[in-house]
Amino acid sequence: MTQTHDAPTTLAPEFEAEFDGHLELDKDAQDLLFRAARTANTFTDEPVTEEQVRAIYDLVKWAPTSMNIQPLRIVLVRSPEARGRLVEQMGGNNKAKTSTAPLVAILAADTDFHDELGKVFPHFEGARDIFAGNDELREGSARLNATLQLAYFILGIRAAGLAAGPMTGFDAAGIDREFFADGAHRTIAVVNVGRPGPDAWFDRLPRLDYDEVVTTV
Amino acid sequence: MTQTHDAPTTLAPEFEAEFDGHLELDKDAQDLLFRAARTANTFTDEPVTEEQVRAIYDLVKWAPTSMNIQPLRIVLVRSPEARGRLVEQMGGNNKAKTSTAPLVAILAADTDFHDELGKVFPHFEGARDIFAGNDELREGSARLNATLQLAYFILGIRAAGLAAGPMTGFDAAGIDREFFADGAHRTIAVVNVGRPGPDAWFDRLPRLDYDEVVTTV
Repeated sequence: MTQTHDAPTTLAPEFEAEFDGHLELDKDAQDLLFRAARTANTFTDEPVTEEQVRAIYDLVKWAPTSMNIQPLRIVLVRSPEARGRLVEQMGGNNKAKTSTAPLVAILAADTDFHDELGKVFPHFEGARDIFAGNDELREGSARLNATLQLAYFILGIRAAGLAAGPMTGFDAAGIDREFFADGAHRTIAVVNVGRPGPDAWFDRLPRLDYDEVVTTV
Repeated sequence: MTQTHDAPTTLAPEFEAEFDGHLELDKDAQDLLFRAARTANTFTDEPVTEEQVRAIYDLVKWAPTSMNIQPLRIVLVRSPEARGRLVEQMGGNNKAKTSTAPLVAILAADTDFHDELGKVFPHFEGARDIFAGNDELREGSARLNATLQLAYFILGIRAAGLAAGPMTGFDAAGIDREFFADGAHRTIAVVNVGRPGPDAWFDRLPRLDYDEVVTTV
């Protein structure tokens, strides 16, 4: 079951049927980001370049965060030494995946995001102080908004024609300690990035129906 | 400064310059989802239909969650009575926006998502029990993954040619109490949806540079 995102295969009829003409996003983009894209468990050896990561960031940075706080920070783990330290913190099956992916990125929330508010939210002078005086608010805002940005980043990886393998099975405190000496970062996910390799995925798992998720009051 | 997403305006040169050819996603889709799209603060009176919301969900449901848990639940607040109850829980400026948007949706995490695992993660029989026995894991997994799904939903609204106005300034416990009698849901965001109205947005706020966000080790 080898597939790549370079040449999306024809979709099964049940996927086609979902598309009902109410979307402005073109069909190819729908497939690339959502319908044909899959979480990859194996990758080819093809490197993921600095230019590709820059292109992904330059796209997804425009997506919204609360008060434009943008707390996401990304560590690209490129050296064998750093890769080894990261793999030690990963759980079970994630060790092998993290060892072999062409690029591995740590995505973390910077709880000191408020130090950037003068730049990113300049019209509200008191913004920094609101966060500086409230650790719980700062921690919660950092985590929530970095998680939104994680989702944007996953879709950005797909927008670059690559596959993402996001993982949350790891020792988060261990990664924080190994990779963020300031004690102010909270690791949200580790994401493998590359072209899907042989047997990159299992059969697609079912999604909840609209009526199981959406209610009207 | 009236703009709509129906006819994206020409982008400023600084946005054009960011696009560097490393993305497979076509330019129109980049603009619709990320570069031209904006968080709207005002909306026209044009209704948002059930069919539009179904089309959005049928697209974004394919985006990934950990172990396919899909904890997001969405309440479409359509009756004047329910709208009034919601507005009471909103903070400051969000009251007026929530009062007037054509569609308002409450996005919440269902901490009882594990009851669906037999359907959505059928190949791992022990999955439900792992979560059933660990409230902290269940709460954290529900919040993190529903937040990812919130981000997918925001981009899905844009994919439908609509604007989203996500808000986190509200009494979350109050909304949980008013709208989720089971005590198992955690409100993550309230999102206004519609076509942008007059003066829908202020000048675009700056984003952090790549080198402020991404490091390599």
